[in-house]
Amino acid sequence: MNTILSRIRSPLDLRPLSLEQLHQLAAEIRQRCIDVVGRNGGHLASNLGVAELTLALHRVFDFRTDRLLWDVGHQAYVHKLLTGRNERFDTLRCAGGISGFPSRHESEYDLFDVGHAGTSIATAVGMARGDEALGRDARVVALIGDASIVNGVAFEGLNQAGTLKRQFLVVLNDNSMGIARTQGAFASNLAKFRMSHLYEEVKHQVKAALESVPVVGQGVLGMLDHLKEGIKATVSPHQIFEQMGFQYMGPVDGHDLKHLIELLELIKDVKHPILLHVHTEKGRGCDFASDDPCAFHSPSKFKIEGDQVVLQKTERKSWTTAFADAFARLAADDPRLFVLTAAMPDGTGVAKVRKTLAERCLDCGIAESCTVDIAAGMARSGLRPIAAIYSTFLQRAFDQVFQEVVLQQLPVIFCIDRAGLVGGDGAVHHGYLDITYLRGFQNMVLLAPADEAELNEALRFALTLETPSAIRYPRDQVPVPYDACPPFELGRARVMRDGPDATILAYGTQVGFALEAAAALADEDIYARVVNARFAKPLDEAMITAALAGGRPVVTVEDHSLAGGFGAAVLEKANELGLATQQLLRLGLAENTFYKHGARGGQLAEAGIDAAGIAAAVRRLVLASRASVLLSPPASTTIGPLPQVI
Amino acid sequence: MNTILSRIRSPLDLRPLSLEQLHQLAAEIRQRCIDVVGRNGGHLASNLGVAELTLALHRVFDFRTDRLLWDVGHQAYVHKLLTGRNERFDTLRCAGGISGFPSRHESEYDLFDVGHAGTSIATAVGMARGDEALGRDARVVALIGDASIVNGVAFEGLNQAGTLKRQFLVVLNDNSMGIARTQGAFASNLAKFRMSHLYEEVKHQVKAALESVPVVGQGVLGMLDHLKEGIKATVSPHQIFEQMGFQYMGPVDGHDLKHLIELLELIKDVKHPILLHVHTEKGRGCDFASDDPCAFHSPSKFKIEGDQVVLQKTERKSWTTAFADAFARLAADDPRLFVLTAAMPDGTGVAKVRKTLAERCLDCGIAESCTVDIAAGMARSGLRPIAAIYSTFLQRAFDQVFQEVVLQQLPVIFCIDRAGLVGGDGAVHHGYLDITYLRGFQNMVLLAPADEAELNEALRFALTLETPSAIRYPRDQVPVPYDACPPFELGRARVMRDGPDATILAYGTQVGFALEAAAALADEDIYARVVNARFAKPLDEAMITAALAGGRPVVTVEDHSLAGGFGAAVLEKANELGLATQQLLRLGLAENTFYKHGARGGQLAEAGIDAAGIAAAVRRLVLASRASVLLSPPASTTIGPLPQVI
Repeated sequence: MNTILSRIRSPLDLRPLSLEQLHQLAAEIRQRCIDVVGRNGGHLASNLGVAELTLALHRVFDFRTDRLLWDVGHQAYVHKLLTGRNERFDTLRCAGGISGFPSRHESEYDLFDVGHAGTSIATAVGMARGDEALGRDARVVALIGDASIVNGVAFEGLNQAGTLKRQFLVVLNDNSMGIARTQGAFASNLAKFRMSHLYEEVKHQVKAALESVPVVGQGVLGMLDHLKEGIKATVSPHQIFEQMGFQYMGPVDGHDLKHLIELLELIKDVKHPILLHVHTEKGRGCDFASDDPCAFHSPSKFKIEGDQVVLQKTERKSWTTAFADAFARLAADDPRLFVLTAAMPDGTGVAKVRKTLAERCLDCGIAESCTVDIAAGMARSGLRPIAAIYSTFLQRAFDQVFQEVVLQQLPVIFCIDRAGLVGGDGAVHHGYLDITYLRGFQNMVLLAPADEAELNEALRFALTLETPSAIRYPRDQVPVPYDACPPFELGRARVMRDGPDATILAYGTQVGFALEAAAALADEDIYARVVNARFAKPLDEAMITAALAGGRPVVTVEDHSLAGGFGAAVLEKANELGLATQQLLRLGLAENTFYKHGARGGQLAEAGIDAAGIAAAVRRLVLASRASVLLSPPASTTIGPLPQVI
Repeated sequence: MNTILSRIRSPLDLRPLSLEQLHQLAAEIRQRCIDVVGRNGGHLASNLGVAELTLALHRVFDFRTDRLLWDVGHQAYVHKLLTGRNERFDTLRCAGGISGFPSRHESEYDLFDVGHAGTSIATAVGMARGDEALGRDARVVALIGDASIVNGVAFEGLNQAGTLKRQFLVVLNDNSMGIARTQGAFASNLAKFRMSHLYEEVKHQVKAALESVPVVGQGVLGMLDHLKEGIKATVSPHQIFEQMGFQYMGPVDGHDLKHLIELLELIKDVKHPILLHVHTEKGRGCDFASDDPCAFHSPSKFKIEGDQVVLQKTERKSWTTAFADAFARLAADDPRLFVLTAAMPDGTGVAKVRKTLAERCLDCGIAESCTVDIAAGMARSGLRPIAAIYSTFLQRAFDQVFQEVVLQQLPVIFCIDRAGLVGGDGAVHHGYLDITYLRGFQNMVLLAPADEAELNEALRFALTLETPSAIRYPRDQVPVPYDACPPFELGRARVMRDGPDATILAYGTQVGFALEAAAALADEDIYARVVNARFAKPLDEAMITAALAGGRPVVTVEDHSLAGGFGAAVLEKANELGLATQQLLRLGLAENTFYKHGARGGQLAEAGIDAAGIAAAVRRLVLASRASVLLSPPASTTIGPLPQVI
């Protein structure tokens, strides 16, 4: 097609374009995003919102040498289209194709592979200081959204940036959807920063407080005077940035390309930190996306049929919905239940819960550390809080899980969505470390359900515990239900199918694949027992002993890293029990591999943890074992278990 | 002794005291803190600073039902003395004695066991919301220091607290030492918040910028006007809190007991969030501590001899100093080296480096996440940054290590001080998870030196890597040096002593204990090989094969959790290699045990990872193995290794 976009090979090609051509390019870019996201799924509304802003940045700066740092990075599609990736853009989020996030492997223009929020300012400070130390005069621009800037590390980054005595530009991309633009800068800014109180409200409360409290003692009078002065002072959002050492500019219209370019030209060489507050509209230029920017933030594939947009539906309900339903059911009987999310109400099911139980839900914004601490405080008060957080994002609260929850042995329940391989979001979002990083915590109970009935039972069981616990499940549909689900008992596995030749010890949704594998193998006269581990901590010792003591092959399988994961825990337990483990094979994600984006099914196959992978492993072990029996006398374990030491 | 303190059994006993008696009590408390910290070590200056503040809080609130949340908690000694722990206070930080941090096991007045910074506000929000949901009318007070409030989670907590429509008091205990009180509230506040620019400086810069930039385009003119207005507006620190929904009060004199009590009485029932900014003097009432509050923040044991204070010295240099020396030596030859600390310049050796290489050091404050991100940015620029962070505090940057460092495979080096058991600081500060939580990261190289020469070599080696790495060492003295130190080679262990009966596979400073154990065992005709693993990732496969293939006992030993730690990594590798591991015993910290405070030597003994513990384990294994050889034919491994799958 003879479009302007098709002629853009690099940002340098923007230089000769007229303003009119740039506007046309923005429109072409929007259409390209809509087309490709419709086909592949991905992030839509936020990318439509930053078309002009991204064009202006690339027109004014030269990011071959200047530094552009993305925050989260799901809004980098426009940037990708301008930096030589238009031709390959049809492969967005597909295996082997363009990533949905910045990626160093794709382009020199992508400085960091990112996908988690709040970090762009801090890394930009590092680059600014690094460039300075190395005598390089690169300009630095960090882009950050209004949802990310309330994250703790963003605040820490601002605090550090304020000490720089050189050019440093933070662009605050404010697309806050809930605020009508006509409310004006002041009110909208306060709301945008999610500082939650409108000033008038604070003022009213302080006044009421001053009228209600008795005046006691001399020194207090001066304090009250000071307070009254405080009320009179204008509180305006730019001051928060000025206090952190920034010069504040804004808010400016993020779709006024001419103004944006002029402004960036003006400030690009100013030798101190500037925060440029840009107002953009999420979903801009696309009616269905701007009408419902939440639904079109990260839509599944969709088709436009006439004037209708039809989102692709899944066959069965998602684990996310299953969690929401389980919570709602249990919460109906127990007023202590409470669910928290860190800015992912849709992704965790909290949005669904909120429809009927709003008073039991709290969205803490992109602030996972704080979310876990609030959950800990709630548990200390006597509530039964459930922190519903993605595996990859719970990493951001590792120390809060340690200090506020585990040290106190508080019965907070972590419901870990997006555990394992996540498909299109790829390397920045896979959740393959949670078993490892939670297993070291004292008395933490780790569970994984195999189907929806098990999720219900796992949650019901976790609510009986007096210690912390975590339930993991993937970004996937729930499987067709298995047999009637017996209740969970601490550290007890569940046998799903019996067979004498080998044991498949599966954790979580790998149980379904193990059952498929066992069924396929039975056709080849290989009969495997399938055990649903249910717990990664504590483990079922009797089950492990039964599986390993016979010397027959055992395969563990998990949608998680092999390093320190479920299979590793089984090895550790076997070592404690004095069991031989040479017939034990662990299937899981390779320790030093980065799994990229693509369909989740393909990723599971690549890792060898789907039905075919499990069947292949069991088949080889069983056949090898049969061959060795034919060749040698019956195997026996001649090295006994260790004596008890200590 | 007939002191007022000796008659205080609970905070209720403060009620009848006159102001004069309260002042006397404050003096007695200070003397008690000086005496006990002199004998036991601990936190001094900060506790001396909060005597009046703590008295006032306990006088006004009733923390049997009201909620008092400590931040970090090293300043809770006064609180302990007032809540029934005076008699046992001589046992501070000793094994079986009073903890140096709040502890639920000691008192109902301690709501959370804490030791990490910035979390009090967030947990207080959780308790406030929990109490509210459960219909309880408890008042909530969160105490936080000026160093902690710049931590990200504190900011996140403030942001959440601002949404509360109920009583909620945050007391900002501001003891910023660098600021002379006479500078006045405005300048000192700005500095206290570490927002680093004095306002006058910002103003000057903005003015200069306005004069230097060319004015381009129409829309920019309004912007410049706005900027000029911004300069005129008074920027005052209380506004940052008012923007977050708080009513700000202060700063007030934290040693004016009368005023504090009056003020707290006045505001204790105000039904919205208040931030009370209290100025206290670190080391107050004790000349040597107030003169050098840095040295007496957390002193070792000391004696007062005449008018001299003599701090107890250690025999040999600390690992911390050894790191500082190693860094300085290497940095002299390589201008790319840079070291970062998160508010622990003394504890990490950065303070020592700063004396000669100030331009290569950066202290980012209590902001570990940001520190790691800045290091990542520096590495991306081409510097070779070293993040010197305690093991327990690196947990706060887990996700930044993942996203900003590991995903990019940046060669950031983590120098992990306080790895393992830390002695007096106890459960909140032990660093026993770092191997586990770092080992899952792709291509992360994990090292641990056995002596100072090895630390030098480990650091020199890490600087040759193009991937992230981490070097761990304990809070201890370096051992007497072993033999001349060969250079590090990736994944190669070092044999320290040979012997045919067993292999001790030691990681880090456990090598010294292993050598001691081997020497002792030799007197009993037990000859153990001692291997210094050097690497926990990647492991030395040849060495592991040699140790395990013979069927002789192997003992791994680490100052770290057994769950997913070094020994677990050895098990995983042995499983990959098809080796039998029933003769392998792992020594380390028990997975579900909380190790308390006490002397580090006692803690190592308790965990069985000192020389005696290692010797006992090896002795039992070797004797049992000899007995089984006498009773049965030579052991052989009849179960072969697994065939290669996939």
